[in-house]
Amino acid sequence: MPWLMCLTPPYSMKARITFNELRQVLPAEHVSVDEEALQDHGYSNNSYHNEGAPNIVVFPKSTQEVAEIVKIANKFNLPIIPFSGGTSLEGHFSAPKGGICISFTEHMDQIVAFHPQDMDIVVQPGIQWEDLNFYLKKQGLFFPMDPGPGACIGGMVGTSCSGTNAVRYGTMREWVINLTVVTPEGKILKTRQRPRKSSAGYDLTKLFIGSEGTLGVVTEITLKLAVLPQEETVAVCDFPTIRDAAAVVPDLVRAGVQIGAVELLDAQMMKAINLANPELGHSEKPTLFFKFSGGSKVIVDHEIKVVSEIAKKHQGGTFKYAKNEAEKADLWEGRKIALWSSTLLKPEASVWTTDVVVPVSKLPDLIAETTKDLESSFLPCPMVGHVGDGNFHVFILFKKDDKKEYAEAKRLNKNLLERAIRMEGSVTGEHGVGIGKKMFLNQELGENTVDMMKTIKIALDPKGLMNPEKVLPDN
Amino acid sequence: MPWLMCLTPPYSMKARITFNELRQVLPAEHVSVDEEALQDHGYSNNSYHNEGAPNIVVFPKSTQEVAEIVKIANKFNLPIIPFSGGTSLEGHFSAPKGGICISFTEHMDQIVAFHPQDMDIVVQPGIQWEDLNFYLKKQGLFFPMDPGPGACIGGMVGTSCSGTNAVRYGTMREWVINLTVVTPEGKILKTRQRPRKSSAGYDLTKLFIGSEGTLGVVTEITLKLAVLPQEETVAVCDFPTIRDAAAVVPDLVRAGVQIGAVELLDAQMMKAINLANPELGHSEKPTLFFKFSGGSKVIVDHEIKVVSEIAKKHQGGTFKYAKNEAEKADLWEGRKIALWSSTLLKPEASVWTTDVVVPVSKLPDLIAETTKDLESSFLPCPMVGHVGDGNFHVFILFKKDDKKEYAEAKRLNKNLLERAIRMEGSVTGEHGVGIGKKMFLNQELGENTVDMMKTIKIALDPKGLMNPEKVLPDN
Repeated sequence: MPWLMCLTPPYSMKARITFNELRQVLPAEHVSVDEEALQDHGYSNNSYHNEGAPNIVVFPKSTQEVAEIVKIANKFNLPIIPFSGGTSLEGHFSAPKGGICISFTEHMDQIVAFHPQDMDIVVQPGIQWEDLNFYLKKQGLFFPMDPGPGACIGGMVGTSCSGTNAVRYGTMREWVINLTVVTPEGKILKTRQRPRKSSAGYDLTKLFIGSEGTLGVVTEITLKLAVLPQEETVAVCDFPTIRDAAAVVPDLVRAGVQIGAVELLDAQMMKAINLANPELGHSEKPTLFFKFSGGSKVIVDHEIKVVSEIAKKHQGGTFKYAKNEAEKADLWEGRKIALWSSTLLKPEASVWTTDVVVPVSKLPDLIAETTKDLESSFLPCPMVGHVGDGNFHVFILFKKDDKKEYAEAKRLNKNLLERAIRMEGSVTGEHGVGIGKKMFLNQELGENTVDMMKTIKIALDPKGLMNPEKVLPDN
Repeated sequence: MPWLMCLTPPYSMKARITFNELRQVLPAEHVSVDEEALQDHGYSNNSYHNEGAPNIVVFPKSTQEVAEIVKIANKFNLPIIPFSGGTSLEGHFSAPKGGICISFTEHMDQIVAFHPQDMDIVVQPGIQWEDLNFYLKKQGLFFPMDPGPGACIGGMVGTSCSGTNAVRYGTMREWVINLTVVTPEGKILKTRQRPRKSSAGYDLTKLFIGSEGTLGVVTEITLKLAVLPQEETVAVCDFPTIRDAAAVVPDLVRAGVQIGAVELLDAQMMKAINLANPELGHSEKPTLFFKFSGGSKVIVDHEIKVVSEIAKKHQGGTFKYAKNEAEKADLWEGRKIALWSSTLLKPEASVWTTDVVVPVSKLPDLIAETTKDLESSFLPCPMVGHVGDGNFHVFILFKKDDKKEYAEAKRLNKNLLERAIRMEGSVTGEHGVGIGKKMFLNQELGENTVDMMKTIKIALDPKGLMNPEKVLPDN
């Protein structure tokens, strides 16, 4: 058990005293300085921004306990780093200044209250979205955000994530009713009451969504829920060029189709999928994967018709759609295995996952320019995108220990980020800023905007203890 | 022309110097101290919180001019009060400390850029939502917020308004992509770029939505747009008791029906409507007005079927729905004339409009308890609600100059607000806080939450010049 308290003392005097105080407010076994636990909570294989591990990891079981922990951290000027799923990509839970990691995975992963009539649910930050949806399924409900497997609601609030469903359902910002927060001083507050809408005061809920633990610790979340679509099917269509495929998206948005998802996979990605599972037998051309969902078969059939006509207009090939559950699973399988199958294109490579987003009208240009840049590189870079909202991920495959490859990955990433900014876009659609993207924030938002964010940060966290060195650039 | 500059000098030395400085950055005729203009921009017939008029009204034509105005206000420590439609109800543009009113109605009411492929539009704050929708209609698009007639986008951002469409489309918070803001120091910033989603930094857009001009001046707004539904119809159904009618709502939400609107009018309101237009011939029982809209007739027909079955389960009478455009207009007419026809119940009365919202499961109880309270009063109080999201308005009819009636109106309002708070609700679903509701904020949100709002306010506006005495309670 990684959280088992080890017997060796913490490293610094301050950490040792803190450790002893923490053990006065938490059970001894919920305060750990075990080296493995520290590493597990500070380092990530998915991130190239590992800048340190915490000194202590704590496993509280209530908001009250979190408040006590934060008060102790405040007293000793130690950083606080919240941790839930640990799946983030930009160094969000790295601890460059050490400090106390608050892990929600062990004892704060529960459903606190379920209100089916209101279609909302109150949960703790350590619950995984997949477990939540498993629970909700038997109620005919679901929570529509679908980030990577293993992600927890706490981190999803922190990064304002979304996923393939975002084109229809939006992002975390649209699906959180209120948050319970422990402030940097250790006070407890709820951002607002539980109705679906309210105009009572500043929107603190949204301020915390996407703030990545830098303004306080979120300990409870009320989520809106959606009714599980009674009908759902998927379809696949290939295109001669990636520009043709991308050009489908603005038309689709303009037609007002309430599509469930529309995912673009480029030729390289399709090749990787065929390597992973040749039986899927996809063509190795740029391909759109569609999900159709709605309250009845008539609605879904109507939408398939509209979308297949748009696809045809843009030189789409045969519009293959699933006629039963087995075919549906088969067709969507290709999309599901995209990330891990991409590594088959370059054995032993690491994946640098990019996350730009632009207005959909700019998508064809952005993708065309990016493809040109990537094709001129010696690194394979398959691409998959939640293109319905202008967001896509390039997986840059490179060897971490090879300096030339690392430099090339960095160069491609930087080019892509700056290209997106130039096209009125953002360096991150859903993964967040963390350490990895903070140096691009001034360029994307302008200095006055970043300055206002800094003013808020300093006002709420004057000591700079809440997840330091994340989100906001240093200068 | 109310903005014509009068020749009498402003009242105080400070205001006079300010006036002269303003005339150096704006054309003389865009800086007014005309008494009528000051009154028009400071007093409202719809509000019982008229606490003063501005000293000067300015009519800028650009963000740059607004920045210059704010710098001058900052130099002389004069309040800034933004003004657009002037339709708000809670004293939002009252000027208890005098100051400079920035009016957007004359020269900042334009469409700046329209991006049909991205389904967004950039507008200035002085544009009316109805004019915007008139422009968009020929594009097959619309902006779904529908507050009272005459409201402008600037004020709609300020109060985070919504309207009858909110049950389907949500509120302003879901329909604004970015804002251009002049900060209290007179700096210009854009809250974020133009993609539909982004995880790049704190959500300043949402922080400004609902902040009622207290954190800075919004000068440009990028709005998301929706495709005009190809099919739309309306239906009406009466119920034996208001509790039966209210009980339809949670079932409807739970069934996942994408209803366009669902409005509840109580028996008194139906009586008022019949007084206003006897030809409509509605029964004088609690009545639900439904709007159904969707991409095709099959979708709409399907939803009518589901909803009529739910209505029947709750003792609903005949489910009358419009079979053509004329019938549709006739049926919806009742809902449209509700506010002004309510005054027929008490000649020469003023209307005190309340705006509570609760989780929909609490709605039947809240409405039943409120009805009981209202029935025991000597004032007529018809009720109309956007009940699909738990929000409703009681129109308390009273004579402003009659002390007993005024006291009774105040008592009924206070009871209602406290009842909503007790039921996990909010004192304002869509009208905002202004002066009228700030004293209820601590009770609704808790002191720690309000304190965090105050910390943000002080950090961004340390001199307290931006629309002073609004939103946040004094203690």
